[in-house]
Amino acid sequence: MIPQDDRGLLLGDGLFETILSVDGALDRFEEHLDRMVRGCAVLGLSPPAPEKARQAAERALSDAGLRQGRAAVRLTLTAGSGRGLDRAPDSIPRLLASAAPAPAPKPAVTLATVGVRRNERSPASRLKTLSYVDNVLARAEARAKGADEALMLNTSGELGCAAAANLFWISGRGLFTPALDCGVLDGIVRAALIRADLGLEAVEVHAGPEALESAEAVFLTNSLIGVQAVTAVDGRSLAGSEALVGLISGRRA
Amino acid sequence: MIPQDDRGLLLGDGLFETILSVDGALDRFEEHLDRMVRGCAVLGLSPPAPEKARQAAERALSDAGLRQGRAAVRLTLTAGSGRGLDRAPDSIPRLLASAAPAPAPKPAVTLATVGVRRNERSPASRLKTLSYVDNVLARAEARAKGADEALMLNTSGELGCAAAANLFWISGRGLFTPALDCGVLDGIVRAALIRADLGLEAVEVHAGPEALESAEAVFLTNSLIGVQAVTAVDGRSLAGSEALVGLISGRRA
Repeated sequence: MIPQDDRGLLLGDGLFETILSVDGALDRFEEHLDRMVRGCAVLGLSPPAPEKARQAAERALSDAGLRQGRAAVRLTLTAGSGRGLDRAPDSIPRLLASAAPAPAPKPAVTLATVGVRRNERSPASRLKTLSYVDNVLARAEARAKGADEALMLNTSGELGCAAAANLFWISGRGLFTPALDCGVLDGIVRAALIRADLGLEAVEVHAGPEALESAEAVFLTNSLIGVQAVTAVDGRSLAGSEALVGLISGRRA
Repeated sequence: MIPQDDRGLLLGDGLFETILSVDGALDRFEEHLDRMVRGCAVLGLSPPAPEKARQAAERALSDAGLRQGRAAVRLTLTAGSGRGLDRAPDSIPRLLASAAPAPAPKPAVTLATVGVRRNERSPASRLKTLSYVDNVLARAEARAKGADEALMLNTSGELGCAAAANLFWISGRGLFTPALDCGVLDGIVRAALIRADLGLEAVEVHAGPEALESAEAVFLTNSLIGVQAVTAVDGRSLAGSEALVGLISGRRA
């Protein structure tokens, strides 16, 4: 339980991370913690001590009895207690951890372009803040359109991301993904793919939705799904995605 | 206390209202509840029963010993418990209420234009959702610039609002405020002023920040401050605001 005056609850004032655990091993824990620390710098919060965060994550896994198989550990850091937009100078962030089963993801999904846009003019668009209602709305809109996930553009009409994943596409020898200043999360799998030696040239771009129309493959990434093929965007089939994503997954393994 | 799996905490998935109480009387309670109900329709949440909401507000006032003088009652409606962007179909919203002293507001404030923009391309920009971190960031940025409050533009560069208030200006015989589709809250005092017979022509507009440069007065509105004069924007003094706002307050009273 947490107090009702927590700023995470009242104002979405805080950050989170979702970390894959496989048989009790926390995947890329340091990268998740680094990202939370960078987010703290933007929000003006004291970052959690690494050992304390790891212990909280481990305890959440044990308490939930999830040391076997796949689990999702969520670390939540709120700005502590306090009313009103101005934080009290002495407010102390509150660190929470929980774990839940993480079933194997679907190998492929469909996308629908939604009306809710990424706000690239806010630093929050590049962080996993507790203010995620736009993502909730985007996902619901995509579901209502019969798709699995949302394709979110930014307010300039450029490609952004999914409601809970980064977006990639392959065209020719290029591996493309929206630049961070398009208003997208600095994803951990995203960064790993950009660095990886896949035999493709990784390019962070500003691109309109038409870029997906000529793509040979479109896929999503996040810490729980890894790399997930997109088989259709707005009902237009993308036949090449599954085979190419299979090859990428093979080369990463 | 609330459970750690509350979607308000985890995802900013919910709504709130801040209601002025004077000597135990809840100001414009029905209008606040109406706005929450309209927000529920946008977010796809079951709205609270009016009697239940009023009882919760009254109880919060009594529990806090704030039936005398000015108090701020906050109603918070979260989307209930549940992980992940998709809400469970059976999730039940959670209604919370709290009260805190509400000292008399400053008669006048200064504004600084901030970098964080309103996202007029999300319905959340017109609602009091629990995803308010952009507002927190905007306020902090304004404070760092030595001002009391933020002047937020939207992603198109149009005038929006303050971090916690609607924006008005007077020019000639016109009373101007940004239209709702600029990405601003449908403020209760804002609506009351537009309807009021002030001897000015109320106009909801799309306007750039230059509109404030030729204004005779600039002011803010919200339920706690009522009408509050702006005496400077980005260090440029607005000598006429206090006198004109005094007249408006007099005509409303």
